[in-house]
Amino acid sequence: MTTPLSSSSGLADRSVRPERFLDLVAPKLHLVEEELARRFVSDVRTVREVGAHILQGGGKRLRPVLLLLTSQMLGYRGSKDVTFATVIELIHTATLVHDDVIDEAAVRRGRSSINFQWGNHLTVLVGDYLYTHSIDMGLAEGNIDVLRLLSGVTIRMTEGEILGLEQLGRADVSREEYFDVVGRKTAALFGAGCRIPAILADAPDSAGISLFDYGFNLGVCFQLIDDILDFTSTTEVLGKPAVSDLKEGKLTLPLILALPRATDAERGMVARVASERTFGDIDPAAILSMVQRYGTVDQCRVIAREYADRALGALRQFPSSPAREALEFAVEFVQSRDR
Amino acid sequence: MTTPLSSSSGLADRSVRPERFLDLVAPKLHLVEEELARRFVSDVRTVREVGAHILQGGGKRLRPVLLLLTSQMLGYRGSKDVTFATVIELIHTATLVHDDVIDEAAVRRGRSSINFQWGNHLTVLVGDYLYTHSIDMGLAEGNIDVLRLLSGVTIRMTEGEILGLEQLGRADVSREEYFDVVGRKTAALFGAGCRIPAILADAPDSAGISLFDYGFNLGVCFQLIDDILDFTSTTEVLGKPAVSDLKEGKLTLPLILALPRATDAERGMVARVASERTFGDIDPAAILSMVQRYGTVDQCRVIAREYADRALGALRQFPSSPAREALEFAVEFVQSRDR
Repeated sequence: MTTPLSSSSGLADRSVRPERFLDLVAPKLHLVEEELARRFVSDVRTVREVGAHILQGGGKRLRPVLLLLTSQMLGYRGSKDVTFATVIELIHTATLVHDDVIDEAAVRRGRSSINFQWGNHLTVLVGDYLYTHSIDMGLAEGNIDVLRLLSGVTIRMTEGEILGLEQLGRADVSREEYFDVVGRKTAALFGAGCRIPAILADAPDSAGISLFDYGFNLGVCFQLIDDILDFTSTTEVLGKPAVSDLKEGKLTLPLILALPRATDAERGMVARVASERTFGDIDPAAILSMVQRYGTVDQCRVIAREYADRALGALRQFPSSPAREALEFAVEFVQSRDR
Repeated sequence: MTTPLSSSSGLADRSVRPERFLDLVAPKLHLVEEELARRFVSDVRTVREVGAHILQGGGKRLRPVLLLLTSQMLGYRGSKDVTFATVIELIHTATLVHDDVIDEAAVRRGRSSINFQWGNHLTVLVGDYLYTHSIDMGLAEGNIDVLRLLSGVTIRMTEGEILGLEQLGRADVSREEYFDVVGRKTAALFGAGCRIPAILADAPDSAGISLFDYGFNLGVCFQLIDDILDFTSTTEVLGKPAVSDLKEGKLTLPLILALPRATDAERGMVARVASERTFGDIDPAAILSMVQRYGTVDQCRVIAREYADRALGALRQFPSSPAREALEFAVEFVQSRDR
């Protein structure tokens, strides 16, 4: 059992409900769900089974929603936004599925339901299946500029994943290394998703660049909050144990910022958990109280707010509209979420 | 130790040397090697390390060679054949790398060097890296018809891999199921590779279809010989133990054809090895002598010859040329190879 810190920002108390930005794109989001389901219609049994598992898992569909809202803000009138919202979600899901491929050491530490039920080899193939289908859908639309954007982002994502794996177990990950991985692994896809409608709507380059900035900064903010929640939330709310990142060997920003100020004993404790990937005789509460003592969770919230402000700033060039308001609202939602 | 059957076709005695079809495309093949190497230039250390490992591993580069020969036969004058020969090899390599992702049970049965050195999780990411780069290269050329062909084939390959995994451990795999998997998993990429130059050279549809047929039938032949070699070759020549397919739970055509004629005891023996994925107290020589007794290795050679003849037939519509001769020669080479 870990003792979560109490939420200190107060943002969670505001009524930041996803309905406020979902409603605008609900009909198109429904089409995205249908497209996703269609991708699992197959004469291959395992594809159907894993598909049912993935679709039941739901997910926030945050990336498709942002793409659809951006598309609406730009006044795009076609249906390609639905296609690429689906493509984006397929790419995201493929990376989640491939994240489920584990090394045998991890079997002892608990497995996800996908690799538990289907094993590593099928898990990798299902990820491949999703990824190849995402490309196939994109190619059917025939927009090569969008495909190039997505291809570049997917390469960055893969590189980010590899860099992230290289960092596992290291207690000396720098702030720059952290943001490099966050940018490639998470934020780039958010950025690309928000930029795609600018290509579809034939908007000026400056609009596309601003929308990438919006998505990218929102994506960094999203990941920062994710990493904060690992220290502030509870197992019940999060669906996974708190302080689980460190136990997986991963240093995130709250710890990266705390370590330079920490005592040798504290640093040694963090390094041991990271390299051994188990708490052993170390109390997770000791890690939490250390992070609390140095105030780095609050510091991370301030940094997340800076990224949020950059995201909001990138929207300012667009005329006010319900869609723009919803995109602004999404920024607050991402910051206030508690899971 | 297993006792290999002696080669009974006599084809291996003829002087079927790869130089006879490699020479024609040697300069372009050299460019393909350079392109492949360029894909592993990265600021991510692991990408460079795995790249060096993969490039040192060499490989026959059969798929690029066939694409380049087809391109030459059609008189294509551009350089896109080099690009797509590289793309094809990247896709092939990505699937090989993903095949190296194993379930923990397999650790006991020996591991490949990639997953041994880098672990499953990095192995899947390296495969993703190769695959995303193959798409990126293809998109840079901007030929959407070729990309659609490749995307369709990649989906078929993934489905074939999944179907193959579903069949593992089953002793009742039918001849139809076997050819379905061979077609999707292996032959489709050969077919697509040979068809691509027809698109690049703007050749008539009929030429493209014939070239797909050539590659596809050659691919089936290639896989049949592979599966025969598992029964006829030795550990020394093959670099892996003979009768290794069955030990991995995989029934191939020589066994699939033998089982309906086998005794109940023989069928039980095969079923046990397939489902338990170990020979246990069963002598692999007993499996070999059973296959020998029913003559199904020779029967498979006859079937391979039929596919070879179909591949040759598909070339007949093209005027005689050194490149066509080399493509014909490749068919004999594939049949005569001993590893």
